[in-house]
Parts: sequence; C-alpha cells; structure tokens
Amino acid sequence: MQTVSENRAFGGVQGVYTHTSEACSCDMTFGLYLPPQAARGPVPVLWYLSGLTCTHENAMIKAGAQGWAARHGLAVVFPDTSPRGEGVADDPHYDLGQGAGFYVNATEAPWAPHFRMWDYVAEELPGLIAEQFAVDPERQAITGHSMGGHGALTLAMGLPGRYASVSAFAPIAHPTSADWGRKQLAAYLGPDEGAWAAHDSTLAMRARGFDGEVLIDQGLSDQFIDTLKPEALGEAMAARRQPGRLRLQKGYDHSYFFVASFMADHVAFHAEALGA
Amino acid sequence: MQTVSENRAFGGVQGVYTHTSEACSCDMTFGLYLPPQAARGPVPVLWYLSGLTCTHENAMIKAGAQGWAARHGLAVVFPDTSPRGEGVADDPHYDLGQGAGFYVNATEAPWAPHFRMWDYVAEELPGLIAEQFAVDPERQAITGHSMGGHGALTLAMGLPGRYASVSAFAPIAHPTSADWGRKQLAAYLGPDEGAWAAHDSTLAMRARGFDGEVLIDQGLSDQFIDTLKPEALGEAMAARRQPGRLRLQKGYDHSYFFVASFMADHVAFHAEALGA
Repeated sequence: MQTVSENRAFGGVQGVYTHTSEACSCDMTFGLYLPPQAARGPVPVLWYLSGLTCTHENAMIKAGAQGWAARHGLAVVFPDTSPRGEGVADDPHYDLGQGAGFYVNATEAPWAPHFRMWDYVAEELPGLIAEQFAVDPERQAITGHSMGGHGALTLAMGLPGRYASVSAFAPIAHPTSADWGRKQLAAYLGPDEGAWAAHDSTLAMRARGFDGEVLIDQGLSDQFIDTLKPEALGEAMAARRQPGRLRLQKGYDHSYFFVASFMADHVAFHAEALGA
Repeated sequence: MQTVSENRAFGGVQGVYTHTSEACSCDMTFGLYLPPQAARGPVPVLWYLSGLTCTHENAMIKAGAQGWAARHGLAVVFPDTSPRGEGVADDPHYDLGQGAGFYVNATEAPWAPHFRMWDYVAEELPGLIAEQFAVDPERQAITGHSMGGHGALTLAMGLPGRYASVSAFAPIAHPTSADWGRKQLAAYLGPDEGAWAAHDSTLAMRARGFDGEVLIDQGLSDQFIDTLKPEALGEAMAARRQPGRLRLQKGYDHSYFFVASFMADHVAFHAEALGA
C-alpha cells in the first residue's frame, strides 16, 4: 500500500492510498478519513460508495462527510467505483465499464477478469483497512449515492450481520427494471435474470430486508428519478414493514449539493447504530 | 444576467449566474448561495474570495460554507478570481493573468482594459446582487482563501464601514515582500511601489487597521507559509492591538480540507458581527 496524499481535516486525516488489488487484478485507489478519535484507538467505519463516473475523490471533496465523521468519531472509506487502467476493459458510454462497476462480480467477457467490485468492497478493502489503520472491523455501516446507493443497499442486505445500518442518497433502487441496471447487469452477469436479483435493492428488500435501520433520501427534483425508481423500493419497504425511513425531499436534485445537505443526518444515523 | 444553474442546498439555493461586467469589460460568472431565510426577506451577505487558479466554482463545491450559511441565515457570494475570455490578456504562468486577478484595478498594459477586480468586487457585483436577489447591502462581511484572503483583508481595510467583519484562510499577507505579490503588483500596477501599499494587508494593518473584528486561520503545515508571511500580519495586528485573532493551526496545509475544517467558525464569526 502506498500513500498518495494525507491532509489534516477536522482534526483528523483525509488520506488517499493505492494498493494492488487481488480482487480486481489492478492497482486501486481509495480515500480514508480517520477522525481525531482514531489516535486513541480503533474507531467504527462508515463506507461511502460513489455513483457513476466518480472516482474515490468526488465524495471526498464534495459530500462534506468529514466534519460530521469527526464529530461522531467515525472513519469514512471512499472506494473507487470500478477497476481502472490500461489493461482493464472499458466502454465508450459513461454508464458501463470504468467508473461504472455497479458493485458486482462480473462473470461475462470482457469484464470478468477485473470487474469484481463486490468482492473488493465486501472482502478485500475491509481487510486491508483493518490491517493498516485504527478501525474496528466489528463496527461497520454503509451508505452511498446513486449507483453507490445501490451498492450500499445490496451489500447490506446481501451480507446479513456485516453492517449495523445502511443508508442511501438517491439510490438506483430497482435496476432490473430500469435503464440504469438492465444494460449493466446483462453486460456484467449475462442474460439470466436470476443472477441479477441479488443486485436489485427492491427485490432484496422483498426477499429478505435488512436486519437494522434503513435511511433513504431522494430528491423530488432529481433529473433521474424515473430511472432510480424510489417508489418501487418504498413500496417494498412498506410491504415488509422494514424499520427505517424513505424521505422524499422537495426541490432537491441528484447533485452533491443534495448529498451534502443531508450528510449530517446520515452520519448521525450511522453513529447511533454503531454506538459511536 | 443569466442563470447558469440553480441547485437546492441546505434548504436554500446555490445558484450560478453570468452577466456582462462593465468593470471587467467581459462576461463574468459568479456563484450565490441564498439561505432559506431569504424567502422571507433580505439577508446579510458574506463574500468569499477565492485563491490562485480558482473560478467561482471551487469554494462553492469544496469549502462547505452553505450548511453553516443556512444555519445563520447568510447569503454567500463566490466571485470569479479574474476576468476571462478570448479577448482578455493572459500569462502562461498560473499566478498571473486569468485566475490570478489579485483583486486590484490594473493600470498597466496589457492588463488595464479588463483586470479591474477591485471595482468588480467592491462596486459592480454588490450592486447587481442587491438589485437581483433578497440580500441586504447594509449588512456585508468578507472572507477568502490565499489570494482571496489578501483580497478580503485589503478590501475590508480599504473600504472603511463597508464590511462588519473580515476573516481569511491562509491569506497572502504581505505581498509587497513576497513572491506571491511583487511580480503581480509590478505587472498590474507598475514599478512604483507606492501604488502597491493599499494592496498589502500587513501595510494596511500598520497604517489604519480594521474597524471591527478580524479572524485569520493559518495552517502550520501550509506548503506556502513562507510566501504567505502570516508572521508579518500577526506582528502588525499585535502592534496595533487590532481586535481579533490570528490562529496558527497545527498540522493543517493550504488545501480546501483546511478551509472546510474552520468554515463553521468563520461563518459563525461573521454572523455574530452581522447580527444574523
């Protein structure tokens, strides 16, 4: 693991690190915010998964999470959204390939050799971080925006007991029935839609739900709302009587201004679940 | 004036607007955050002047000011740092010309026709904003980062009675004696150093000070600290017994992580001075 940069922020350290990923068979870069409390011992970890076109950097500089994380004593991990590099497959469209990993383990060509973001976020990176930094792997929570909200919800429901809480900002909530989803799930996982179900929050909510609290914020002026399908997830949450909240926020769009506006609530929500 | 974008943020609106500037003889773009309180009547205004290479956008997306501005009911203006465009003079170096206006009215060729950022920030843009938005021109305060901290301090001391309070993040504090300053003041204002004095915070502090509170934060791991010369301004503040604080912050560098870390304090400081 190599240090790209470390900047003091809110009494802690915002770092950027690279490492050779076994899961993705390429070098990967991630951001990690360690709050001041980490100087005294391991702290709980909040994962922030980003959306289409993002790297590790976007949320790190625009989402305003660090100040709240410092207040509550949480570390925040900002993984990249896909494998990258010269030998890694790509697509000319922004919504497939590099920058668009969708948090799945691809089984289809040309994606299978590198696009294993599920394993990267669920297994490899948590192991690396627990080994290298003062974080407590027994206390994890997860959030994300858009494609990253999809990743957060599907990982949280797919790995029962792993995360104390899950939240999402404008998640891609029902990808098996939407333009942001069918194309990518077919490309990465093949035409058998049975393999897609674990990567659809609405279907996972119907099938098993989440053993903890769920917080979802969705802007009602989101330019992508018809593709995100919050109503499908909302119906599934209501039908299951899932503990949690889907908040439909008047006037907010899909931007980081929306994410930043509700970040304080999300960090506080996770801190409470983590006992931080 | 034309609207480039408007995003809801923290219950208010983060807008970006363009207009034809008379002062700069070109089109100029600025950001304006209006807090939710502006829906009920004019609100006080905090000016945020940015540093070298920045446009109106950098602080708007990275400094984390809007949430605190919403809490205190302040508007925040994010002007550009220079005139721009095809007919506008420029220099191949990042620290002169476009993106490096230094908040002066240039008198020398080739800069004089467009580089009138003092007039733009002091006169033209305040007039436009007071005319077009629910802001109260009788209640203004000013802050900035690096070159923008220089701008904030020199404008505040150069226009007595205009601003209720002034603050700065890692300002270029003594440009007449530094690499960030001598080159630009000579280019924009000519070789007579007498014309430079009004654009040096340390000299202005020695000569007249500020009729109100001053708050300055400076990171002690700032990679530019020797060029910024906070000690010169600190000595001038101490010698004058200027009301205010120079805070030397251990471990912080020159980045927006530093700015964001102390933004809550700065917005609260200005809100108190403005009675907001």
